[in-house]
Amino acid sequence: MSDCVVLRANWVLPVTHPPIAHGEVVVEEGRIAEVRPARGVLDARTGRDFGAAVILPGLVNAHTHLDYTLFRGLVEDREFFAWIRELVKRSRLLSEEDWRISAMLGAAEAVAGGITAIGDCTPTGASLEAAKTFGLGGVIYQEVFGIGEEQSVEETIRELAQKGAALKKESTGSRLTVGISPHAPYTVRPALFQALARWANQNQLPICIHAAESREELELLLEGRGVMAQSLKERCISWHIPRQSVVAYLDHLGIIGAQTLLVHGVNVSAKDCVLAQQRRAAWVHCPKSNAKLGNGVAPLALLCPLHEAEARIGLGTDSVVSNNTLDMFEEMRFAVLLQRAARRRVDALTAKQAISLATLGGAQVLGLKDVGSLEVGKRADLCVVRLDRLHAMPNYDPYSALVYTAHASDVVLTMIDGRVRYDAALHAEMKYRFPENDLAPLFASLPHLTACLQASLGA
Amino acid sequence: MSDCVVLRANWVLPVTHPPIAHGEVVVEEGRIAEVRPARGVLDARTGRDFGAAVILPGLVNAHTHLDYTLFRGLVEDREFFAWIRELVKRSRLLSEEDWRISAMLGAAEAVAGGITAIGDCTPTGASLEAAKTFGLGGVIYQEVFGIGEEQSVEETIRELAQKGAALKKESTGSRLTVGISPHAPYTVRPALFQALARWANQNQLPICIHAAESREELELLLEGRGVMAQSLKERCISWHIPRQSVVAYLDHLGIIGAQTLLVHGVNVSAKDCVLAQQRRAAWVHCPKSNAKLGNGVAPLALLCPLHEAEARIGLGTDSVVSNNTLDMFEEMRFAVLLQRAARRRVDALTAKQAISLATLGGAQVLGLKDVGSLEVGKRADLCVVRLDRLHAMPNYDPYSALVYTAHASDVVLTMIDGRVRYDAALHAEMKYRFPENDLAPLFASLPHLTACLQASLGA
Repeated sequence: MSDCVVLRANWVLPVTHPPIAHGEVVVEEGRIAEVRPARGVLDARTGRDFGAAVILPGLVNAHTHLDYTLFRGLVEDREFFAWIRELVKRSRLLSEEDWRISAMLGAAEAVAGGITAIGDCTPTGASLEAAKTFGLGGVIYQEVFGIGEEQSVEETIRELAQKGAALKKESTGSRLTVGISPHAPYTVRPALFQALARWANQNQLPICIHAAESREELELLLEGRGVMAQSLKERCISWHIPRQSVVAYLDHLGIIGAQTLLVHGVNVSAKDCVLAQQRRAAWVHCPKSNAKLGNGVAPLALLCPLHEAEARIGLGTDSVVSNNTLDMFEEMRFAVLLQRAARRRVDALTAKQAISLATLGGAQVLGLKDVGSLEVGKRADLCVVRLDRLHAMPNYDPYSALVYTAHASDVVLTMIDGRVRYDAALHAEMKYRFPENDLAPLFASLPHLTACLQASLGA
Repeated sequence: MSDCVVLRANWVLPVTHPPIAHGEVVVEEGRIAEVRPARGVLDARTGRDFGAAVILPGLVNAHTHLDYTLFRGLVEDREFFAWIRELVKRSRLLSEEDWRISAMLGAAEAVAGGITAIGDCTPTGASLEAAKTFGLGGVIYQEVFGIGEEQSVEETIRELAQKGAALKKESTGSRLTVGISPHAPYTVRPALFQALARWANQNQLPICIHAAESREELELLLEGRGVMAQSLKERCISWHIPRQSVVAYLDHLGIIGAQTLLVHGVNVSAKDCVLAQQRRAAWVHCPKSNAKLGNGVAPLALLCPLHEAEARIGLGTDSVVSNNTLDMFEEMRFAVLLQRAARRRVDALTAKQAISLATLGGAQVLGLKDVGSLEVGKRADLCVVRLDRLHAMPNYDPYSALVYTAHASDVVLTMIDGRVRYDAALHAEMKYRFPENDLAPLFASLPHLTACLQASLGA
C-alpha cells in the first residue's frame, strides 16, 4: 500500500458537504487527507480514475446478524413468531465451523457491497472473527436470551462476561467493540434485563435490543395475549403483564440510555419516541425486514427528527433470513419508498436523507466518531459505485443515482482504513476480488452445507 | 442460430408447473420444444449449461414508457402533479432524434434485464421502433391528451388514426400490436374518452389508461377541487364535476371493457374493482412508482383475485422518471414487501405469486397468448438469471432467490423468439452484449444529451 493514494470519479459525495463534480479523495496513512475537485494528471502508480462513478463514505449497516448468512431464503412465508421459531430450530443444525463459514460469507457480502462498519448481533460470536477478517469496523453485540429461569441471572451474566472477555481479546487489532444484546422483551425476562442494564452500565458496554418490532410483542406486553403469551404458557414460563408500551417497559427496567440502540421501532407512539430521545437512546431503522415479515412500516419521522445535525438513527438490513440481502443501496431505496407509500407524501424521506442515514447516521448510533463522511482527518472508509451500467444511465444527481438505481453489485471498490478490501477490477469472479481474503475455501464448503440445510426442510 | 438449442441450469422455472431442479429447455425454431430434467451430455455446439442459475420465462413489463428513459433521475422530490408538469415541460426540449435515442436506451435496459414483452405508452411513437429493434413483443399504446378544446375530438382522432397507421406499418415484422392510451381522467375530457371508446371498439384497438393513481385525481373527480382543478381553472378549461370514483366515471364514459388495461389502481374501492372485473378489464400494478410519487399502495387483493387461473393483472415498472429503473426483479420484490407492509401480514403476497404477476399475468393482460410460461409450443421468450454472486448465495428455492435477491444485472441471457438478444458472456462491457444491436452510437450521444437536460435544470 502506497503512503498516498488519490481516488478520482465523476462525483465525490462527502455527505457532510455538497457533492463535488469531478472530484477526488486523497488518502494518506489510512486517513482522508483531502477531498477536492480533481486537478492535474493522475500518477498512474498512486492514482485511480473511476470515471462514471461516485465515491462516497463506506456504508454503515447498523443492524445485522452475519452469523445467519447460510439461512438466506431458508425460512420464507411465515408470520413473525413462527418465523423466529423456525430460525431457532434450524440454528441447532449448525456446528461451530458452520457458523464461522456463515458469518464469513456475510462479511464478504457486506464488504463487496460497500459496507465498512456494522452493528451486529451474534448468538455465537462467529461474526466477530468474520468482521475482523474482512476489516470491518463497528460493534459486535453478544446476543442474550433468557425468558425462562433455566439459568440464573448471575450464571447468565457470568457466561456472558466469560465469552465477552474472549471476544474482546479476539477483537484486538480490529476496529470492533464488543457489546451486549438482550434480544427482545419476549425472549429476556425483566429481572435479566435489569441485571444486564446494571452490568452494562458498570462495564460501559453498548447495548442493542430488538424493540417494538411486531404486533405479537405488543400484545404480550399490553394484554398478555397472542402467540407469544401462548408459547410462554406452553413452556410453563410465568409472565407478569407489564401493561406498558415496549419502550416504556424497557425504560422502566432501566435499560434505555445513551448506550442503547433500539432496533425496529415499528409499534411506537409519539410518547415512546420522546422518551427514547430524552434518554439519548438511538434507533436503527430496518424497512425491508419490517415489511417482509409483515410487521409494517416504522414511523421514521417520530423515531427521530431527521433534520437534526446529530440524528440518533441509522439504517440496517437485519439478517438475510428476513431481508434477504445485505444491500444498503436497496435498503435506502426501500426506506424512501416505504415512507412515501405509508405517509403518501414525497417529502416523507428524500434520497439525500437516506444517504445520510446509511453513512453518518449509522456511524453516530454505533458511536463511531471518525467515519461516516468524507472529511479530512477521518478514517479512509469509503466505497466507489459505478454509474455506467444501463440501469444507471443517464444520471443527473449523485443522490438520486445512488438511492434510486444503484445496488450492492455496482460497488467496484471498498476501502477500509485506506486498505482496499474489495476490488471488482481484480478478477471477473467474485471470490477472487478480495485482495486480503481467500474466499475459495468458503465457496467450496457451501454445496455440502446447503444440501444439509435443504434436507432439513423436509424434516 | 442453430435449429435446436438446449439451455440447462440448476433450476428451470416454468411458472405454470413446479420448478425443475437441474432442468433444461429445448428450443426449436423459436418455440419451446421441451422442458425437462437435464439428461445426458450437452452438445457443446448447441447446448449451454448455466450452472448456478435459473431459466424462467421472459419477464413482461406490463406498463412502461420507454420514451422517457433519458429523464431518469431528472425530476425528483416533487408531489405527483408538480412532477407530471415538470416532466411535460422537460419533454419539450427533446428532438425526434433525442426521443429515438431515449427509447432505444430503454429498450436495451429492458432486454438486458430479462424483459421480453412490454406494455408501453408512447407520446411520440419512438418506443415502437426501439422495441422492434430489440425484438420486444407486446403492445405499444399511442398516448392521447386533450382536456381542453384546443383541438376537436374529430381532429384528434384523425391525427391518431394517421399516426397509428404509420406505427402499424412500422410494426410489420415485429411482435408488437398498436393500441391507444387516453392518458388519464385529468388530461382527457369526457367527450374525447367517449369518442375514443367508440373508435377503439370499431377498430378493435387495445386501450390503456392511467386510472386511480393519485389523490389529486380523485379530488378532481369527486369534488372538483385540488391542484388539478386549480390548473384547469387557470387554463380556462371548463370541468363538470362527475362526483364519481375514477373507475365508475370511466365506465360511465364507456371506455372500460375487455380490451382495457387500467394502470395503478391505488384509489379504488371494492365496488370499483368488482365493476372492472365485470367488464373483464385488466390491471397493471406499479408498486415502486406508486410509492415513490407518494401516491400510496394499491389494494392488490381487491384489484384482482390472485388465485384465479387467468388473473387479469400484471406488473409494471412505469417509466424511469418515477421508478427509476426497469428492473422487474426489484419490482416483484417491492410488490411483495409493500403489500406485506401495508396489510401487515406475510400472506398478502408471496414470491411465487409475484413471479406469476411478472410473467403470465403480464402476458394475459396484454393479450399475449403464447408467452409468459415455459410450456411446449409457446414462443421461446426466456431469460437466465445467475445465482452465483455473493448476494444470492446460498439459495434453497428459486422463487425466493429470484424475488428476494436477484436484480436485472443478474440476468446473463435474454432470448426472444429463440434468438439471443442479450448475452452477458459476450463482452465485459454492457454496450457490446447485444448480438443484434450496436449500442456504441447510443452511448456516444449520451454525454451531449444529458448535458443539455442538466443545463435545463437551472432554467
